[in-house]
Amino acid sequence: MKELTYFNGEFVEPGEKCVSIDDRGYCFGDGVYEVTRVYNGRCFAFSYHQDRLYRSMREMDIPVKMPPDDLQELHEIMIEQSGITDGYIYLQITRGVSPRHHAYDRSKLEPTMLMYIRPIEEDLSKLAAGVKAISLPDERWLHVDIKTLNLIPNILAQTKAEKKFAYSAILFRDDVCTEGATSNVFAVKDGILYTHPANNLILKGITRQMIVTKVAPSLGVTVIEKACSREFIENADELFFTDTIGGVIPITKLDRKPVGNGEPGPVTMRLRDGYEKLLHEGMA
Amino acid sequence: MKELTYFNGEFVEPGEKCVSIDDRGYCFGDGVYEVTRVYNGRCFAFSYHQDRLYRSMREMDIPVKMPPDDLQELHEIMIEQSGITDGYIYLQITRGVSPRHHAYDRSKLEPTMLMYIRPIEEDLSKLAAGVKAISLPDERWLHVDIKTLNLIPNILAQTKAEKKFAYSAILFRDDVCTEGATSNVFAVKDGILYTHPANNLILKGITRQMIVTKVAPSLGVTVIEKACSREFIENADELFFTDTIGGVIPITKLDRKPVGNGEPGPVTMRLRDGYEKLLHEGMA
Repeated sequence: MKELTYFNGEFVEPGEKCVSIDDRGYCFGDGVYEVTRVYNGRCFAFSYHQDRLYRSMREMDIPVKMPPDDLQELHEIMIEQSGITDGYIYLQITRGVSPRHHAYDRSKLEPTMLMYIRPIEEDLSKLAAGVKAISLPDERWLHVDIKTLNLIPNILAQTKAEKKFAYSAILFRDDVCTEGATSNVFAVKDGILYTHPANNLILKGITRQMIVTKVAPSLGVTVIEKACSREFIENADELFFTDTIGGVIPITKLDRKPVGNGEPGPVTMRLRDGYEKLLHEGMA
Repeated sequence: MKELTYFNGEFVEPGEKCVSIDDRGYCFGDGVYEVTRVYNGRCFAFSYHQDRLYRSMREMDIPVKMPPDDLQELHEIMIEQSGITDGYIYLQITRGVSPRHHAYDRSKLEPTMLMYIRPIEEDLSKLAAGVKAISLPDERWLHVDIKTLNLIPNILAQTKAEKKFAYSAILFRDDVCTEGATSNVFAVKDGILYTHPANNLILKGITRQMIVTKVAPSLGVTVIEKACSREFIENADELFFTDTIGGVIPITKLDRKPVGNGEPGPVTMRLRDGYEKLLHEGMA
């Protein structure tokens, strides 16, 4: 088993110094990315990640140079050649290399593609016991639905959270709960599941989509996509994060106050089990 | 005369591929920058750029590794060794290199420093004749006072402007004029100069500071720092951009409508002359 890194058509060493100082990803964060979970030696929900990648590229006006089938094959090759069966594949596409000028000329740029597969080393099953979250203001730009590399607000929020030994931060735009610093957020109240609508103010997470469109319906749990107030979130019976690596992550403490009775909630755990089952079965 | 590029302690070729794929600047846009004008073989207002750089680094929690005197000396060396007397120095500092994880550990990271000097090839005197601007919504995050590499909204706005043969875009947050896509914006009404206050919603440009604190006062022009409405901007007698490279740039057309009588205004041109004089005299 070994980490593998692919850069513009060839395999390179992990962490290799092969990026031009004039790559627009380096001076403007001008690019998009995806992180796909590798489980049981297969990409989970790859077609969803691919659809979102192409949407991000359309929104950013970055041309697609690798057709869907080739991209999927490359993911499969990375898994096979690395021997990593439990991990993730990071894929990043930046607009290309040219002397720094804010405006770009699409016709003169060749996008830069970076991919690597890395194993997951943490014991993710520990997350089932519940995690701590802190709340922070959501100060990001108004198109976080595009999965771009402009991640400073996210990394600052995530660092603040981890410094307080929290798993992550729940972000509030004014009085509304949008999502987590690197995840989506769900609340349960009176047996009903709530999460922010997938508009320009959140990233439409793939795990979120699985919960909303597959897991919750199959368990008979009603989902309402709604902008929830801080008061609503603070008084929820249950809260959880969803993200590609951790899946469904019960939140048992928010800003030093217990969520519900301070234990992972029953609806959350049913959804978590349902999601794990889906992950185990695999999905294209 | 030759372009020079400095990367982490040594000179490298322009556009060199020396950046690690794990540089946080590359995957998160996690860094800050400055662009200093080189005029008559000297850096203009270097101490202002340096102060702003250190402020950006404080706000971003990036440690300063190079003391002020050394940084200034390095700028002087770049000018001397390149032989470039009319150009600019770009300086970028990213948080450092480590396998991708949102949260950073300050104690384990060594910031990456990139600098280059490039000549100015355009004929900037042409800008005195006035430029066209378009208006666009300001959709950026709420800390654009920090000069970070998260510049996607700026590059998208600037590209839209240039596609319409405009010099740049004037951004409006809701109904308020904040600044340009890569510059600050000033309006003149009844002989009084207006510009957005230097809070979290604009980047406190050095040229803007020169106009507000030196040029306007020396010419007896009153400056009011105020959030101006779209209606106010659209009915201004004069409008201009300020930026480090172009200086004071009269705007004679906004969204296909002439500004004032469609010619560079008298107050703008006095300020432009005053700024050019300052540039010529030089400033530490």
